[in-house]
Amino acid sequence: MNFIEKYKKAVKEKNSILCLGLDPKIKESSLMRIREEKAEFIFEMISKLHEYCSAIKINRQFVLDLTPADLKQLTDYAKEKGLVCIADHKLSDIGNTNFAALETIQKEGFDALTILPFPGNTEETSRKAHELGLGVIVLALMSNPEYEQIKNSSVGSEPMFVYCAKQAAQFADAVVIGAPSEKNHLSMDEVKKVKEIIGDRLVLMPGVGAQGGEAEEMIKTFGENLIINVGRGIIQDQNPVEAAKKYNEMFNKLRK
Amino acid sequence: MNFIEKYKKAVKEKNSILCLGLDPKIKESSLMRIREEKAEFIFEMISKLHEYCSAIKINRQFVLDLTPADLKQLTDYAKEKGLVCIADHKLSDIGNTNFAALETIQKEGFDALTILPFPGNTEETSRKAHELGLGVIVLALMSNPEYEQIKNSSVGSEPMFVYCAKQAAQFADAVVIGAPSEKNHLSMDEVKKVKEIIGDRLVLMPGVGAQGGEAEEMIKTFGENLIINVGRGIIQDQNPVEAAKKYNEMFNKLRK
Repeated sequence: MNFIEKYKKAVKEKNSILCLGLDPKIKESSLMRIREEKAEFIFEMISKLHEYCSAIKINRQFVLDLTPADLKQLTDYAKEKGLVCIADHKLSDIGNTNFAALETIQKEGFDALTILPFPGNTEETSRKAHELGLGVIVLALMSNPEYEQIKNSSVGSEPMFVYCAKQAAQFADAVVIGAPSEKNHLSMDEVKKVKEIIGDRLVLMPGVGAQGGEAEEMIKTFGENLIINVGRGIIQDQNPVEAAKKYNEMFNKLRK
Repeated sequence: MNFIEKYKKAVKEKNSILCLGLDPKIKESSLMRIREEKAEFIFEMISKLHEYCSAIKINRQFVLDLTPADLKQLTDYAKEKGLVCIADHKLSDIGNTNFAALETIQKEGFDALTILPFPGNTEETSRKAHELGLGVIVLALMSNPEYEQIKNSSVGSEPMFVYCAKQAAQFADAVVIGAPSEKNHLSMDEVKKVKEIIGDRLVLMPGVGAQGGEAEEMIKTFGENLIINVGRGIIQDQNPVEAAKKYNEMFNKLRK
């Protein structure tokens, strides 16, 4: 089964399009500093919340101190619970350097990883990732204010975000798209343009506010091909179980 | 002392603009797979070669299995030997995610790191890095064939590589520029354009062939602001000491 099939199976089995963003930091001001503490936190969150989600996502930058063996234990446990595991790696190097990372990510037990199309080598990286059984998720539309200029830069005759989507459609399995909202520079027109290009590929949508307003249009557009990541909104909540349940129910209602 | 000052001091003391690329892989086909073996290899190379270089560069993707403590031991040893330590991280995330990585990179004892300008947040990332005493090296001109299209993409009214150089000049300490050669798409015109923009900032130049032909023009242009990385050409040589010596002498001859 490839990454897309694995995710679609998990969505059916779990009745969820929620992805749990497991970046081990509790408050802005108190990053967890100890390897054991981080691994334990991730384990505990999977153990408490696996019923309400179909995937987990771990950002590499928060777990640089976990070993591949640590991560393998965590992904093994997540898979036992029927979850798909995404390494939010934002891989962005070339050739054998990327291949070295991909081999490690595979050993760590992840099903897919995020990559940046900046070096232009999405084809090469995706081919190698697929050989190793890893799905590839290409950054396309980021919601941070500074990305507005980059998204609108022109690659050949098309905007950067269209280039990213086309690379994903041709070589990879999914794209990352932030949800348009009043607070950011993204628009549903851009999202629909990406949808036209990527067809039935998956969409990883990072971040969604407590009210989930931004999710509605995205769910209407992508349905079960959407992977909605919620991190802090769940793991920093006083009651993560209730929070995960609430997000999942909200997304499921919007899917109907 | 900031990163630029540290590097210039090392260049004087070591009489070298050579940076040792310590990616622990011996042959294309045999990536080292064991943490201890990798750490030992890096240690051994520093021990044998420190006289002939002023910096070391370790690519994150090859050492995902080394812990921050492993890397701290290695950078401590390199610093004892008067070397500047560069984390070739290609950091490319946003906000607190980048800050988490920067804190780890600082704990690992590195003096500087490479970042990608793709998310557009070079200012934010550089500010935080500088607060932590880390220098920032921005990717500008990569030599891989697929980058040709990206380098020529237009950000506002200027090519991407000019945008990258301007971001570096405004917020960071150095840029990455591949050496133009007949085998790649880079030209000395582009390099000179970057030089105009970055002034006295440093230039990390990855890769140089055994004959070093590409180095000549780059050394003429950037002089002691150049950091020439040689990896495989030294560490995969049958006699790494002779190879390091040879590269260093060659670069020093061209500096005169």
